[in-house]
Amino acid sequence: MKLKIDINCDVGEGFGRSRVSADEKIMPLISSANVACGLHAGNPVLMARTVKLAKEERVAVGAHPGFPDLMGFGRRYMELTNEEVKNNVIYQVGALDAIAKTANVDLQHVKPHGALYNTAAGNEEYAKTIVEALKALNSKLILFALADSKMAKIAVKAGLRVAHEVFADRAYNSDGTLTSRNVDGSVIRNAKTAAERAVKMVKERYVTAIDGRSVTFDKVHTICFHGDTSNVQRLVKSTKEALRDADVEVAAVSSFL
Amino acid sequence: MKLKIDINCDVGEGFGRSRVSADEKIMPLISSANVACGLHAGNPVLMARTVKLAKEERVAVGAHPGFPDLMGFGRRYMELTNEEVKNNVIYQVGALDAIAKTANVDLQHVKPHGALYNTAAGNEEYAKTIVEALKALNSKLILFALADSKMAKIAVKAGLRVAHEVFADRAYNSDGTLTSRNVDGSVIRNAKTAAERAVKMVKERYVTAIDGRSVTFDKVHTICFHGDTSNVQRLVKSTKEALRDADVEVAAVSSFL
Amino acid sequence: MKLKIDINCDVGEGFGRSRVSADEKIMPLISSANVACGLHAGNPVLMARTVKLAKEERVAVGAHPGFPDLMGFGRRYMELTNEEVKNNVIYQVGALDAIAKTANVDLQHVKPHGALYNTAAGNEEYAKTIVEALKALNSKLILFALADSKMAKIAVKAGLRVAHEVFADRAYNSDGTLTSRNVDGSVIRNAKTAAERAVKMVKERYVTAIDGRSVTFDKVHTICFHGDTSNVQRLVKSTKEALRDADVEVAAVSSFL
Amino acid sequence: MKLKIDINCDVGEGFGRSRVSADEKIMPLISSANVACGLHAGNPVLMARTVKLAKEERVAVGAHPGFPDLMGFGRRYMELTNEEVKNNVIYQVGALDAIAKTANVDLQHVKPHGALYNTAAGNEEYAKTIVEALKALNSKLILFALADSKMAKIAVKAGLRVAHEVFADRAYNSDGTLTSRNVDGSVIRNAKTAAERAVKMVKERYVTAIDGRSVTFDKVHTICFHGDTSNVQRLVKSTKEALRDADVEVAAVSSFL
Repeated sequence: MKLKIDINCDVGEGFGRSRVSADEKIMPLISSANVACGLHAGNPVLMARTVKLAKEERVAVGAHPGFPDLMGFGRRYMELTNEEVKNNVIYQVGALDAIAKTANVDLQHVKPHGALYNTAAGNEEYAKTIVEALKALNSKLILFALADSKMAKIAVKAGLRVAHEVFADRAYNSDGTLTSRNVDGSVIRNAKTAAERAVKMVKERYVTAIDGRSVTFDKVHTICFHGDTSNVQRLVKSTKEALRDADVEVAAVSSFL
Repeated sequence: MKLKIDINCDVGEGFGRSRVSADEKIMPLISSANVACGLHAGNPVLMARTVKLAKEERVAVGAHPGFPDLMGFGRRYMELTNEEVKNNVIYQVGALDAIAKTANVDLQHVKPHGALYNTAAGNEEYAKTIVEALKALNSKLILFALADSKMAKIAVKAGLRVAHEVFADRAYNSDGTLTSRNVDGSVIRNAKTAAERAVKMVKERYVTAIDGRSVTFDKVHTICFHGDTSNVQRLVKSTKEALRDADVEVAAVSSFL
Repeated sequence: MKLKIDINCDVGEGFGRSRVSADEKIMPLISSANVACGLHAGNPVLMARTVKLAKEERVAVGAHPGFPDLMGFGRRYMELTNEEVKNNVIYQVGALDAIAKTANVDLQHVKPHGALYNTAAGNEEYAKTIVEALKALNSKLILFALADSKMAKIAVKAGLRVAHEVFADRAYNSDGTLTSRNVDGSVIRNAKTAAERAVKMVKERYVTAIDGRSVTFDKVHTICFHGDTSNVQRLVKSTKEALRDADVEVAAVSSFL
Repeated sequence: MKLKIDINCDVGEGFGRSRVSADEKIMPLISSANVACGLHAGNPVLMARTVKLAKEERVAVGAHPGFPDLMGFGRRYMELTNEEVKNNVIYQVGALDAIAKTANVDLQHVKPHGALYNTAAGNEEYAKTIVEALKALNSKLILFALADSKMAKIAVKAGLRVAHEVFADRAYNSDGTLTSRNVDGSVIRNAKTAAERAVKMVKERYVTAIDGRSVTFDKVHTICFHGDTSNVQRLVKSTKEALRDADVEVAAVSSFL
């Protein structure tokens, strides 16, 4: 059987009567779309337009809940209680689910955004609370989690379907975490480099960390690209070509997980 | 058969790590609770706590979507496009529905808040768009609308279940609209007066407007009290006693509509 | 003496850890910068970066207060009380003034944004209230107002310095108001057309309205370009060349008003 | 010379067309008012009303800047860059300063709010950045800081005037920090206890920590009461009587620092 991989991207991240122009270019290239839900970016109109666009391009739709921090784009750590984490996630996923429902679209997945994603990757409290939220809301939702992270393990143990995720446009630390955006070289902008890393992560399940060591992955289901990385279209196109040459098929994760 | 009436109140209207203390006092007295959904007041944690409280007190839960205006508490008119009205409503109802679902509570109704309610009462565009939003989302939801308003008629014609609503703590203009809060005497704070008006509106389907004329209603299904009216508890208690003496039963509107 | 004209543009309109990249391109081309103050767009960090950039490019800095509506980018009419209009304006101008002060920059002007600008152009209550706010805060601030509008006249009468403003990238109605963005042809994207209109408005003080009639202006002090108009750089460059050929000098309005 | 002490309280902490009713009761009892500036609570109208009220009651006015987190009331730690801390503080102080100026009121002080206050008390980066912000903006402003904290020491060293602050309605840990609100007994609601602690802190410069040990203070200039503590009026009245009996005069800190 042919090896399959999902390609996901964050979309609908504008605000203030924004248009989805950048999304229009990236959407035809990906298989799963993470839609911002209004608390770190996005708003009801943009969510509806983004879901419609994803549907037209036959891209699977997921919720991308973040910290309630529009000013910081959800990229700043916030010290939330479990009750706050849980209900913020349910609120955001529920809001998108309703908007998707009116477009006859079912949500495929949930991917926490930014600092919430990174915190949950290593923090048991946050991870358990997010898992609890999804189980309470809809246990069919697939959780996108950093490959081999605590978050991924906790979710699997709790019985959720988990898509182990790798990043083709971000550098890794040797412990498997992402290198902070404040570090030089943390964002990979060269299309060929990104493509090569992606193929290695998918086929050989390892990547070279920023310190030269190897990071290995047990499982890899989906590759993330960031819509705000310059040249993201070229990165994705180049990666898709390299994957095709390596005989890997790109498909929404729900089709093979 | 005994005449029945619903009593509803806006709840969960705090913000900023607020507690639901005022709600704890009013909840045992009402049959339907309109829960703020985060865009004009309320937030995910407060919504969850309010739904839990309603469930404990066996009060039916509804969504209370408003204009996206926390600073103005949704009481300022905003000129929104239909696309904005529609998706703002779906967003808010969907978010509460998800939170309610995790508490095993089904939403009974939707009541637009503040300036959105008042605008939709008389503005066909807003009314039609709200109706369209609810039909797209969940046509079983009961819409709370100003008795005999354009909104109510449009919703009935579109096939929605509509609870015709009257206000015991607010003065009426002779055209059936509510007297603006800026006008002296627009808020009724006397418990006996409120109770008498309520009984007349329910049993005789009329009320005396601020100019002395009579306003008549075709149908009356639910009476609203505002949680931020001082003495609201006394008003509700007094009204319930008067209704009981008049042989009217208080019950959630879904039980008799 | 040589005829002088100011060229202004809205800047700092991002949100959510945004960068000022688009601003970096437009700033060297203009003489006055309208900086978003956080209630319809912008945030404290972006404000500081934008003021710094303006200073480096020797561009005069002004406040660009808007309706408190991030989601709608301040482009939706909101029904505010005078107390709300007044204090929202003072709040925003004061916040930017403080940030500018820490960069040793004095504010040159205030230009209301979006729906607040358009409303105040024709609505006496809003216009008077904004004038009252500026007089209370700092009567040396120059007010940017639609040329020949009620707002401009009320401000002049009240003793404020007023820069009469025209728009090179927007169509006019024959009553001198701007054609709504919802109308086809309301935004002028052709650089040559914009340049020609600008020269006519500055030198001959008239423009052809969307219905073919002429709109004349008593005074013209500043030309606005919108940073979110595509090709805005080309429009501004083309206009500056045309002005130079017509022997008009571009300079910050405070240098000649 | 008679011993003097300032009494301060957080005010203007409502949102959404809130009234200042609670503030109306506490304002006549205090000498310094910390006014919320819109990012964790408060809004332009409420700020103006609160300043006016303070002026009427001859209470000194200060800014109370917090984390940009309305939903969490600024009581949740947020990981901000120095650039974010600095500009958020300048933005908030500047906005209030402008509103105060239009009421002919000069700001006396700045007191960081909630999690920003607590973080800065012990975190050098936050403390230095806040001090830098105030020095850049207006070095005459008095900084309210936890007595003997890093924040207080850094500010004194940098040449700012500092009011060392103690809390009569909060329990202390033996290291001089405030006991977390999540701990039982962290909030003192008994008026007599609060009054006794206040007198001891002012006259003998020590307080008994929650573990029974003593916390001593080098200097004590101002006592804080929280407006959202139940019975706060009784606590303040009782404390003022106890201070008078102990021959201590209550006065705004600027009169004796």
